[in-house]
Amino acid sequence: MRASALYAEAMHSLFNRRESLAAFGAGAIVTALGLKLGRAQAESAAIPKALVFDTFGTVVDWRGSIIAEGNAWNKAKGAAVDWGRFADRWRAGYAPAMDKVRKGELPWTKLDTLHRMILDSLLPEFGLSGLSEEEKDHWNRVWHRLNPWPDSVAGLTRLKKKFTIAPLSNGNVALLNDMARHGGLPWDLILGAEVAHHYKPDREAYLTAVDLLGLTPAEVIMCAAHRGDLQAARSFGLGTAFIHRPKEYGPTRQADQAHPGEFDFVTRDILDLAAQLGA
Amino acid sequence: MRASALYAEAMHSLFNRRESLAAFGAGAIVTALGLKLGRAQAESAAIPKALVFDTFGTVVDWRGSIIAEGNAWNKAKGAAVDWGRFADRWRAGYAPAMDKVRKGELPWTKLDTLHRMILDSLLPEFGLSGLSEEEKDHWNRVWHRLNPWPDSVAGLTRLKKKFTIAPLSNGNVALLNDMARHGGLPWDLILGAEVAHHYKPDREAYLTAVDLLGLTPAEVIMCAAHRGDLQAARSFGLGTAFIHRPKEYGPTRQADQAHPGEFDFVTRDILDLAAQLGA
Repeated sequence: MRASALYAEAMHSLFNRRESLAAFGAGAIVTALGLKLGRAQAESAAIPKALVFDTFGTVVDWRGSIIAEGNAWNKAKGAAVDWGRFADRWRAGYAPAMDKVRKGELPWTKLDTLHRMILDSLLPEFGLSGLSEEEKDHWNRVWHRLNPWPDSVAGLTRLKKKFTIAPLSNGNVALLNDMARHGGLPWDLILGAEVAHHYKPDREAYLTAVDLLGLTPAEVIMCAAHRGDLQAARSFGLGTAFIHRPKEYGPTRQADQAHPGEFDFVTRDILDLAAQLGA
Repeated sequence: MRASALYAEAMHSLFNRRESLAAFGAGAIVTALGLKLGRAQAESAAIPKALVFDTFGTVVDWRGSIIAEGNAWNKAKGAAVDWGRFADRWRAGYAPAMDKVRKGELPWTKLDTLHRMILDSLLPEFGLSGLSEEEKDHWNRVWHRLNPWPDSVAGLTRLKKKFTIAPLSNGNVALLNDMARHGGLPWDLILGAEVAHHYKPDREAYLTAVDLLGLTPAEVIMCAAHRGDLQAARSFGLGTAFIHRPKEYGPTRQADQAHPGEFDFVTRDILDLAAQLGA
């Protein structure tokens, strides 16, 4: 049995038995884990103290939010833009734009600026070259106004009682703050690529967040709807929680899936994550 | 009349008339400011969007909290440590320790580590050399458990409805997160020296926070009980709000005071700040 599977089993066992363990305190918990995992493994199986979340797709519905705002705009302007295709094309420019930063072709650049570069290249394709600068800026900030999935606020509110919760996103801090205030996301603090000047899945993006939290990687669980994000987090020593978001890409692309046991926690949504963590 | 006084007057006028202005929207507000200040000054008199707070002394009562926890410890251990003097001596080591970082005698060092260096040097003086490593670490984290002043949570909760609120403190992020969770401080996000790798009053500490917020300096108000903090913030273009904390130093030292008009806002406490900002 791999260490990560042992870790997951111990965590599940721990959280399912938290009521009885609570009476014995932290020493008893460590002992319980130690008995299950053996000493060396118990040392790496720290009690999780913070949960960090991918945001685009995991906490908020970027595609549905852009379509909803775009369709309202179509109606107001008498336009007929295909906002689903627009959203997909915008998002498709995201990884290549970050790669330019990763390869040093661009210096550190906030995601707002990358989004604007992609937007400017898309507007002619959709017959929108005539937008004013103010309108372009307003559209670029649609990423600041993305709506949470229906379970996100309730799930995060439950998790916050027991754990520090923060986004660990490629979004810049101002974007994530506006998004939180727009959607009522109750983060304790905002972490992400901008404080590390490195985009996920770069090592620095994860380990800067862990360092700012004053924790060890094993005390932090990365929560995401994307397998790649979790595989990177695991390779740097963080715990992992998969959150299934079957509607992220609409009809255009299959969302990631995970089997039970593939990650430390495999969950249906953030409320299910709260339940599995005993929060 | 100096620009800062004009700014303060326009802000007060703006917030006192916010009900009537609300009906006209942002354009009317800018026009109203423009009429009062003239175009050039209106451009620098941005509408504030975020409030950033000094924490030790401004939001939390460091001296009273250390004394309260210390006196409980005295009682439990049958000890007679003078915790007021202990707190004052600990705090007195704070500026010289940060100066070592500022002068390059130490590399960037988290405040937790500076606090521990000072603590280790103080323990013999107070007859506490025999503490275990676990006890020393627990005492060092007393700064993570400081209690808010009685008005802090209610005042911040009101301000958060209208403005982004964040600490801009020399405390490290983990310390500030623990403090917020301990005291129920409803920050939107946590900013501070650690994300800039510069302690206040260095320029970088203020301007990194402004940059992460995606705002201009004039859109951010620094809120503090310490004149030096506000004078530095003003020199870098931020707005300023003085919060009077007469009990910060107990009987040992006079707290800073300010006359009306010396800063953009001069307030009795955070509830008064909320009232003056129409929040």
